[in-house]
Amino acid sequence: MGTTLIKNGNIVTATDRYTADILCDGGVIKAIGQNLSAPSGAEVVDASGQYVFPGGVDAHTHMELPFMGTVSADDFYTGTAAGVAGGTTSIIDFIIPNRKQSLIDARDFWMKNAEKSVADYAFHMAVTWFDESVERHMHQVFNDNGITSFKTFMAYTGAIGVDDQELIQIMRTARKLGALVTAHCEHGYAVVELQKRLIAEGKKEAKYHAESRPSWIEGEATHRAITLARAQGIPVYIVHLTAKEALDAVVTARKEGLLVWAETCPQYLLLDDSVYEKRDFEGSATDAADYVMSPPIRPKGHQEALWAGLAAGLIHTVATDHCPFTHQQKLAGKDDFTRIPNGAAGVQDRLSLMWTYGVERGRITPEQFVNACSTLPAKVFNLYPKKGAILVGSDADLVVFDATTRGKISAKTHKHNCDRSIFEGFETKGQVTHTLVRGELAYKDGDLRVTRGNGRYLRRDLPKA
Amino acid sequence: MGTTLIKNGNIVTATDRYTADILCDGGVIKAIGQNLSAPSGAEVVDASGQYVFPGGVDAHTHMELPFMGTVSADDFYTGTAAGVAGGTTSIIDFIIPNRKQSLIDARDFWMKNAEKSVADYAFHMAVTWFDESVERHMHQVFNDNGITSFKTFMAYTGAIGVDDQELIQIMRTARKLGALVTAHCEHGYAVVELQKRLIAEGKKEAKYHAESRPSWIEGEATHRAITLARAQGIPVYIVHLTAKEALDAVVTARKEGLLVWAETCPQYLLLDDSVYEKRDFEGSATDAADYVMSPPIRPKGHQEALWAGLAAGLIHTVATDHCPFTHQQKLAGKDDFTRIPNGAAGVQDRLSLMWTYGVERGRITPEQFVNACSTLPAKVFNLYPKKGAILVGSDADLVVFDATTRGKISAKTHKHNCDRSIFEGFETKGQVTHTLVRGELAYKDGDLRVTRGNGRYLRRDLPKA
Amino acid sequence: MGTTLIKNGNIVTATDRYTADILCDGGVIKAIGQNLSAPSGAEVVDASGQYVFPGGVDAHTHMELPFMGTVSADDFYTGTAAGVAGGTTSIIDFIIPNRKQSLIDARDFWMKNAEKSVADYAFHMAVTWFDESVERHMHQVFNDNGITSFKTFMAYTGAIGVDDQELIQIMRTARKLGALVTAHCEHGYAVVELQKRLIAEGKKEAKYHAESRPSWIEGEATHRAITLARAQGIPVYIVHLTAKEALDAVVTARKEGLLVWAETCPQYLLLDDSVYEKRDFEGSATDAADYVMSPPIRPKGHQEALWAGLAAGLIHTVATDHCPFTHQQKLAGKDDFTRIPNGAAGVQDRLSLMWTYGVERGRITPEQFVNACSTLPAKVFNLYPKKGAILVGSDADLVVFDATTRGKISAKTHKHNCDRSIFEGFETKGQVTHTLVRGELAYKDGDLRVTRGNGRYLRRDLPKA
Amino acid sequence: MGTTLIKNGNIVTATDRYTADILCDGGVIKAIGQNLSAPSGAEVVDASGQYVFPGGVDAHTHMELPFMGTVSADDFYTGTAAGVAGGTTSIIDFIIPNRKQSLIDARDFWMKNAEKSVADYAFHMAVTWFDESVERHMHQVFNDNGITSFKTFMAYTGAIGVDDQELIQIMRTARKLGALVTAHCEHGYAVVELQKRLIAEGKKEAKYHAESRPSWIEGEATHRAITLARAQGIPVYIVHLTAKEALDAVVTARKEGLLVWAETCPQYLLLDDSVYEKRDFEGSATDAADYVMSPPIRPKGHQEALWAGLAAGLIHTVATDHCPFTHQQKLAGKDDFTRIPNGAAGVQDRLSLMWTYGVERGRITPEQFVNACSTLPAKVFNLYPKKGAILVGSDADLVVFDATTRGKISAKTHKHNCDRSIFEGFETKGQVTHTLVRGELAYKDGDLRVTRGNGRYLRRDLPKA
Repeated sequence: MGTTLIKNGNIVTATDRYTADILCDGGVIKAIGQNLSAPSGAEVVDASGQYVFPGGVDAHTHMELPFMGTVSADDFYTGTAAGVAGGTTSIIDFIIPNRKQSLIDARDFWMKNAEKSVADYAFHMAVTWFDESVERHMHQVFNDNGITSFKTFMAYTGAIGVDDQELIQIMRTARKLGALVTAHCEHGYAVVELQKRLIAEGKKEAKYHAESRPSWIEGEATHRAITLARAQGIPVYIVHLTAKEALDAVVTARKEGLLVWAETCPQYLLLDDSVYEKRDFEGSATDAADYVMSPPIRPKGHQEALWAGLAAGLIHTVATDHCPFTHQQKLAGKDDFTRIPNGAAGVQDRLSLMWTYGVERGRITPEQFVNACSTLPAKVFNLYPKKGAILVGSDADLVVFDATTRGKISAKTHKHNCDRSIFEGFETKGQVTHTLVRGELAYKDGDLRVTRGNGRYLRRDLPKA
Repeated sequence: MGTTLIKNGNIVTATDRYTADILCDGGVIKAIGQNLSAPSGAEVVDASGQYVFPGGVDAHTHMELPFMGTVSADDFYTGTAAGVAGGTTSIIDFIIPNRKQSLIDARDFWMKNAEKSVADYAFHMAVTWFDESVERHMHQVFNDNGITSFKTFMAYTGAIGVDDQELIQIMRTARKLGALVTAHCEHGYAVVELQKRLIAEGKKEAKYHAESRPSWIEGEATHRAITLARAQGIPVYIVHLTAKEALDAVVTARKEGLLVWAETCPQYLLLDDSVYEKRDFEGSATDAADYVMSPPIRPKGHQEALWAGLAAGLIHTVATDHCPFTHQQKLAGKDDFTRIPNGAAGVQDRLSLMWTYGVERGRITPEQFVNACSTLPAKVFNLYPKKGAILVGSDADLVVFDATTRGKISAKTHKHNCDRSIFEGFETKGQVTHTLVRGELAYKDGDLRVTRGNGRYLRRDLPKA
Repeated sequence: MGTTLIKNGNIVTATDRYTADILCDGGVIKAIGQNLSAPSGAEVVDASGQYVFPGGVDAHTHMELPFMGTVSADDFYTGTAAGVAGGTTSIIDFIIPNRKQSLIDARDFWMKNAEKSVADYAFHMAVTWFDESVERHMHQVFNDNGITSFKTFMAYTGAIGVDDQELIQIMRTARKLGALVTAHCEHGYAVVELQKRLIAEGKKEAKYHAESRPSWIEGEATHRAITLARAQGIPVYIVHLTAKEALDAVVTARKEGLLVWAETCPQYLLLDDSVYEKRDFEGSATDAADYVMSPPIRPKGHQEALWAGLAAGLIHTVATDHCPFTHQQKLAGKDDFTRIPNGAAGVQDRLSLMWTYGVERGRITPEQFVNACSTLPAKVFNLYPKKGAILVGSDADLVVFDATTRGKISAKTHKHNCDRSIFEGFETKGQVTHTLVRGELAYKDGDLRVTRGNGRYLRRDLPKA
Repeated sequence: MGTTLIKNGNIVTATDRYTADILCDGGVIKAIGQNLSAPSGAEVVDASGQYVFPGGVDAHTHMELPFMGTVSADDFYTGTAAGVAGGTTSIIDFIIPNRKQSLIDARDFWMKNAEKSVADYAFHMAVTWFDESVERHMHQVFNDNGITSFKTFMAYTGAIGVDDQELIQIMRTARKLGALVTAHCEHGYAVVELQKRLIAEGKKEAKYHAESRPSWIEGEATHRAITLARAQGIPVYIVHLTAKEALDAVVTARKEGLLVWAETCPQYLLLDDSVYEKRDFEGSATDAADYVMSPPIRPKGHQEALWAGLAAGLIHTVATDHCPFTHQQKLAGKDDFTRIPNGAAGVQDRLSLMWTYGVERGRITPEQFVNACSTLPAKVFNLYPKKGAILVGSDADLVVFDATTRGKISAKTHKHNCDRSIFEGFETKGQVTHTLVRGELAYKDGDLRVTRGNGRYLRRDLPKA
């Protein structure tokens, strides 16, 4: 690995902003200081007038996910490459066993798939069922693979969803390990009930997806996940929180002194449910089906509540739930919204969207931006200070960011392997100019220089007491 | 049936207070007016200086309930007699099939048992499991027996408790019928988890019962019951609400425009969890085990919240959950609190306690007292205006009440078939002097004149649209 | 006074519904019963198939109010007549002294004006300033005139508004008397500040009225009024509550066990702030200025919250704040919204609107309708059981109401002395067919038979302990 | 100024923890890095096994404050020295003009007094009245003295308190300047009313102080301060928040997207109102009077709510409201609690208490501790990055902290010029071993090496846009 010197950048961390040079060597940050001199052979990046952030950590992606009869369109190569182009240098993806499948088999499958990554990656282990073998395998992946977070689905009943009895057992096991449980919070049985009723009423179009998963269904499950964690005396991490009701549950818990982490995603901050009125055959660049994801995009009002929560520190992290499906794939559900593969692309767009609509609009500070997009996910998921920090000894995952450049998001130009963008036409102010992955300049001014397989698996371990 | 004339009583209804005579004949109220003359042969009750209320309706009793390996100590005869002594002239008890038992078989068993009642009775049908036959039987008892309310247990997992999938199906069936679902709200699996942990830690005494069922476990289930009802677009009735968190869930729902009924009981208004420190061998007249019921008695602070909720109309009805077990029966759990039969006596004490600690203390008005103890339960459960009203044509179930008499509750003197009272030593101001059951003077100044089997089954039907 | 017999009406009270005859004689209800026979000479009203309610009590009207340089357009004659046409048989108007004016002088002025009323009337005494003489006069009108409620304005700073120091003194005096304080809750100084800023920015049109008095300004003052009442240990009555934030303050207080009464008005339940976009010169039958009142009409969302509050018993009474100004009068503020006389007509429309949009739409029950529009205002303001009740001995103020008749509200046909209606074009289902004022048939099927000066002043007194 | 090298400390910032050396020279941090070599003549501090924090910033102190007929017992010399002994290297004190006194005169008085400080100091300007001259002087001290925060008292009506009209004008002026308004939130008039009533009832002892200022009085004013700031579109900083109700107001505001800063103090986190039962003549080391401060110490329950708020980031900063009075001074109010000088000592104890009861007990992280006690107050009040940061170029205000040392707080040993400590007997784990003030070792292992007058006035200026 080569040597890189980033000169005169305006460094932003989760608490500080200051101007200094950063010397990267051997994949890590070697020195931070004024007027550092470039070793011979070093590549020098002039970051004057630009910001330098720790590389983005996206704690919620689904590369090449087998789901709903198809596979998400970005594999670990294209997906991590798109991330690098957007300033994200680490992802935490999900190993998702089928019900009754061995966690170990699933781990092997995902680990193999991920080898083609161009940036570093870790895994949450989804626990989709429970018996004594599952418990044993939770211990095994925790100890052998440094997997310190377990994902549970309260939705997707009958498939990868777990019921409360299983969730309690998973949480109990996590408590013994000191691992963190994360939860997708929607009441699965209630969703199925609402889906059935809508279909029975002939309401089969994509837009009814949102109606089948109202915000209060998410609020309920969020409250329940927190309660079950409370019964174990453990924290819980709520993935992709989208709804006022869910935020209320988090706030109530925090006022009680409980530790609850909440994550949201750009789509929930920036889109409202009018997207479900879009029709591509009516000349829109996207279609209601492209916005089908779970939880769904919410009615007006929820977005401002999420921004307020983020600004107040009540929502902690911003991930993407990146899980693209091409329009062709979406068509599987053209006659039945329950068959539309759930998900959309986003891993590349996170930083530019959050800067433009968060920092630039005055909703969050640059430090909050760095915290939510990099430092805090790294801390919560035990990647810090290797990731998420600009400290001597940390991995030299760095982003140089020009806050003055204007751009526009489009499926035509994005690096996602997907023909649609749910952010089509969104204007941005602020753009990544350089991305360093462990000290290598992997992206520069539109030019991706990534190497298939360069990404490393990130073993995570609990901090020592 | 004879003729009775109640003279000059201060009649209190759910909205009015006025002085008039009430003429009862043929079991019903024939006339209300000034200076009514007594037909020949009529029994005349001089109610001057006393209140006259519609007979109490206790919407939550368990007479001769087979439960936890024993049977509750009051049968329908002694239990309804105790009720009459305390001014309660109608009860709604519960038919509770075992898991997999036919609802019809259970109905027959309970109907038979109840024939010995001395006052009128109705039944909620508990639905403790679900399949196509259960659905059919729900229709059957609704149509054939006028059973318009279905009880569900979110607690008692593995026994009579239902899981969410079952609860959704029960609610869906109730929606089709227009019937009301009632719910015992505690997260059953979470309770089991906490019980197991406590027992494993050697915490086996009665007092740990409360620790195994914290208030937030009730709050969660209340929130969930409301959400599942909302998914069906139906109201829900929360039985024996005891906790601030549960009340918060109700209030949030009401602010959203949802119809949620909430019931509480005198024990939750009047006792706090210091009762679990009592030891009979230390000279107390009661023991912690006597207070074991579910939900448990709550820590200080919840009681005032419940009183506030009642005064504000956010809690609607006051029932007793009457389910006495003798101290001998309680001893079944002396080495393991999870084996203590849950329940206590209360059907006789409701009116005097609610008057003394509610009206007399200025927390609720006499009209609110009548509404909560008689009119509203009759309305909610389709017994009105036959019950719960002082109107011409209504059943002549009437209570004459002297608000000046002082008394003291004791197991030594109560009519409950139980050797313990959780209200032992509670002072009362206000006492029933006469109870009329369909026009018959069934109780007068301490003298019970009830006749075994005089009670009638109350078929309930929905009001016509 | 003659004798009237209302036959076979479906009587609705705040708790009961039953069919009976009502015999009125000497201005009061003489008997209620089945098959009452008509005394000779009695007028018989056949109410078969119709409802009979106690006459409406409108606890908030402003007849011939001198305000903002003009006088409200209905005087006590036309205003009470319009009320009778709409089923309202009692009003509580306001005596409003100017700052530094003697309460006694103001009383005399208003008492004189009100003599022309055609139905009964009472007065709240507004206390618009405070010194020792005001305190003395509060005692005097309480004792001499049976004025048991004192109105305070937290808005209208510099005119009739009081500051907190004054409000505290008024509340302290009310506490000594046992009288009820009512409060118009908006932060007066903050409103003035916002008005000044808008005017300075050239935002002078009627629509900016709403922007100068946002909902949170009302929420704040409501919270403050409750707090100051709490400091005295007294209840408080919030007039014309319009905003979610204000309702939240009430709910929080009720959960704390405080007694807070809340009143709203049909306009706040039925209109949203899109009315401020209306322009009469663009063909609308009304103009933004016609909707200028304080508090203003609120954005969408608040209305559903108010309906939910009413259904849940968290909002108690529905009054009108009837205070009409003709369009000509409104034009005084055409170049400066702060000069538009605040108010609109409504006294006639209350019952039909509340029935149509409340009962008919399933938001409230008929009993809740009666309670909010008649019984509860009568109780809260010490007019019950003379008013607000259908009881033997109560005043024979009765309304016969046909729930099947459809109509449409229009300034062209209403009895208000005003050329505009803020409810122009609102369809109604349900209409008053007969109104009895103390036993006299004062309105029948569109025909007003009122007599100038027939209304009596209603002295109010506290119930004896 | 000399040169100091701190070796091998475990540096903690508001976001990071890492081991490095810190070279201080010329009063500022010159370098941070591994294996820095000590320049000749440099003093070397071996911080191995210890933490290094940025020097504490106490944003709320009252040195030599003329108040209630006396003067607070610590002057700027003894007070700042005590601060240094406890790791606090910057204070923000208050210039408090009397009503009608010129802000400029008051500024000169306080500036002069503060010259004796041993560590750096800034001032909030209290605005205790308002007219055109006050407005002008606000501009003047902002521009000339870099005073960017204005303090308002909603309590102390009739003395230094302002009414709402004044508060609005102060906020409007602050908005124009871009300055921050801070508010002491208690309803002054309501407090006076409650005081009068208590005194009239003969309740004159110190303990009634708490009863005269209940938590809901603070909640109300907090809500109001936020509302008035909202009307200006500006943030507001709530000083010494003590009550659940006040925290609720903050949380509600944050959920609405408003920027509200909240400060609390160790006494509100660690003491409950049982302190008001203490009597020194009964052998207690302190007396109820020693705990008289405003707001008062709160009932049990509020403390846990404040800790939860701090952990959740809903309370932002921890200051002391240091304002000691000797027991002799307190005796001025022995017959009338309203005459007891309000305040107590605390500036020395903040870091050790917050570490022991916050970090050590697992309620907050070390990073949150640094943020609340140093970084965030520096940021909010425009002292950052000069203060509150460990960055090259920042002032070398540093604390070396041994987290293993146990101690006990006592008036006998503290450096406060006061014979009582409200924390008497509190055990601590964690203690400052070295304090550097702008690079000078001003405190070492119990040895204060401060120099009278070494403190510098901290001009504050807004960050450039």
